[in-house]
Amino acid sequence: MYRTFIPGVTPPTEQSRPAWWFAFVGNKLLIQSVGTRSLIPSLINLVDIGLMPVRTQFLGTLDHQECYGAEMPKDTIPPLGMAFKGLRELSSSLEEDFFAVSGRAFQIVEWDRTHQYCGYCATKTIQLPSKRAKCCPNCGLVNYPRLSPAVIVLVSRGEELLLARANRFPESMYSVLAGFVEPGESLEETVMREVREETGIEVKDIRYFGSQPWPFPNSLMIGFTAGYAGGEIVIDQLELTDAAWFSKDNLPQIPPKLSIARKLIDSFLSDSQS
Amino acid sequence: MYRTFIPGVTPPTEQSRPAWWFAFVGNKLLIQSVGTRSLIPSLINLVDIGLMPVRTQFLGTLDHQECYGAEMPKDTIPPLGMAFKGLRELSSSLEEDFFAVSGRAFQIVEWDRTHQYCGYCATKTIQLPSKRAKCCPNCGLVNYPRLSPAVIVLVSRGEELLLARANRFPESMYSVLAGFVEPGESLEETVMREVREETGIEVKDIRYFGSQPWPFPNSLMIGFTAGYAGGEIVIDQLELTDAAWFSKDNLPQIPPKLSIARKLIDSFLSDSQS
Repeated sequence: MYRTFIPGVTPPTEQSRPAWWFAFVGNKLLIQSVGTRSLIPSLINLVDIGLMPVRTQFLGTLDHQECYGAEMPKDTIPPLGMAFKGLRELSSSLEEDFFAVSGRAFQIVEWDRTHQYCGYCATKTIQLPSKRAKCCPNCGLVNYPRLSPAVIVLVSRGEELLLARANRFPESMYSVLAGFVEPGESLEETVMREVREETGIEVKDIRYFGSQPWPFPNSLMIGFTAGYAGGEIVIDQLELTDAAWFSKDNLPQIPPKLSIARKLIDSFLSDSQS
Repeated sequence: MYRTFIPGVTPPTEQSRPAWWFAFVGNKLLIQSVGTRSLIPSLINLVDIGLMPVRTQFLGTLDHQECYGAEMPKDTIPPLGMAFKGLRELSSSLEEDFFAVSGRAFQIVEWDRTHQYCGYCATKTIQLPSKRAKCCPNCGLVNYPRLSPAVIVLVSRGEELLLARANRFPESMYSVLAGFVEPGESLEETVMREVREETGIEVKDIRYFGSQPWPFPNSLMIGFTAGYAGGEIVIDQLELTDAAWFSKDNLPQIPPKLSIARKLIDSFLSDSQS
C-alpha cells in the first residue's frame, strides 16, 4: 500500500476526523506502534491529551487524511505506548510514505522554528496566510523553507570507483563524494570543485543520475556520475580520513539501500558486471 | 579572454594591489566604463575615496586579483565616471566572467545582510572565521548562504512545445515552465507537480538538461525536458496569464540568449529540425 501525499498550506476550516501528527523534539519524531512490528506517526491529537505544541504547521493530506507538523517542548514526556525516535534510525522502520512525510514535516517545522525573527532587522515575523512563507512586517523580507542543494558524485576509472571516508561517518563506512552547491555555481561546477578539493582528482563526462530529498536537516541531493580525467589522490584532511579506488571485489562497507549514494554504487556495479 | 575565479572566504592579510569591488545598493551594481564601450566593476577601493560600505565580504580571486562584495548605504552617490546599474540589465553589457562573479557577489552580500540576527532567538549573529557561515552565539544556529533550487522544464508534444506567460513577465514574452522545489520532493517530483499545477498537463520521460545559477535573488535553475503524457491546458490564473502549444513556425517572444530557458528552447528547435 502506498499512500498519496498532496502538499497544502491552508488547513481545512474544521477537522472532521483523526489527523496524522508529525510531532518533533529536535530531530526526534513521536511514533506509536501498531500490532507487534509497525511504527506510525501519532494519530492522537496531542492537544486532546494535554500536550501543547510550541508551534504547528499544516502539511497537506495523506490519502485525504490531514497531516500536521508540530514542534513539541524539549521536556515533553511521550504518552503511554509512544516514543520519540531519531529520524535517521526511522528510515528503516517507518513505511516509505510515512518516512517521506516525516522528512518533509521535519524540514517545515525546522523552517518555522528558525524563522521566528527577521534575519535583517530582528523584528518578529508573521506567516503569510496562503503561502509557505514568513514575512517581516518591518522591512518586508520574505523567507520560504530553506533547501540546501548538494551534489553527490560517483567517480569511476575503468572498473574502479572512488570512495572516501568522511570524518563524520560511522566507523569503517566509505561512500561516494558529496558537497553543497555554492552561490554562483552550476551543479557541474560544484561536481568538479568538490572532487578536486576533497581528493585532488579531476573529472570529465559529468552525467546526471537522479535526485533525492534528504532531510538531515534540509538537503536536496543531486546525483551525478563522472569519469576520471587525471590527478593522484590527495585528501582534504579536514573533511576526509581516507579516499581510494575500489573494485567490486574489494568493496568496503557502503551506505544503506535507501540512500542515493548506495543507488549510485549499485548502478555502477551492475553496469560493470554486464 | 576568460578569467579564472577561485572562491575563497579568508582575505589575504595584506592587500598588495588593486582589488575588484562588487559594490551594491539593493540589486544595483556599481560599475565604471573603460574606453567607449566596456563596463567593469569598480577597481577603486571605495574606502579610499570616502565611501564606507555597510558590510563587506571577501569573495575569492579573479585571475589572482582579490574580489570583494560590498553593501553600500542606500543614499550612496556614485563617484564621477561610475554608476549603479541593475544586475539583470548588466547581463548583456558586462563580460561573462564579471557577470558571473557579480551574481555570486550579490548572493553573498544579500546573505550577509539578511543574516545579521538569529531567526530563532533574534540574537546578533557572528561570522565564523574560516567558513562562509554565520552562527548564533546564544542558541548555536548556523546559516550558510541560501540557495533556492528551482526546476525549469520544456514540455514537448511532437513538434510542439508548451510555453506560458507568467504574470510577472515583460509584455508578450513566453517561456518554459519553472518553479521552486519544495521540502521533501525529488527534482522529478517538482517537475510533475509544477507542470500539473500551472497548466493541468501530465508529463513523462523527464530528462535532465543542465543547470545554471540565477542570482535573482538566489536561484539555482535545474533544467529538464519532458514529454506530454495527457491532459488539456487549464492555467493557474494566480501564476499565468496564458499557456499554449507552439511550433517553430509560430513562436512568440522568448527569453534572451543567456538564460537556460532559451537554451532549452533552442536545443529543442535544433533537435526537431534535424
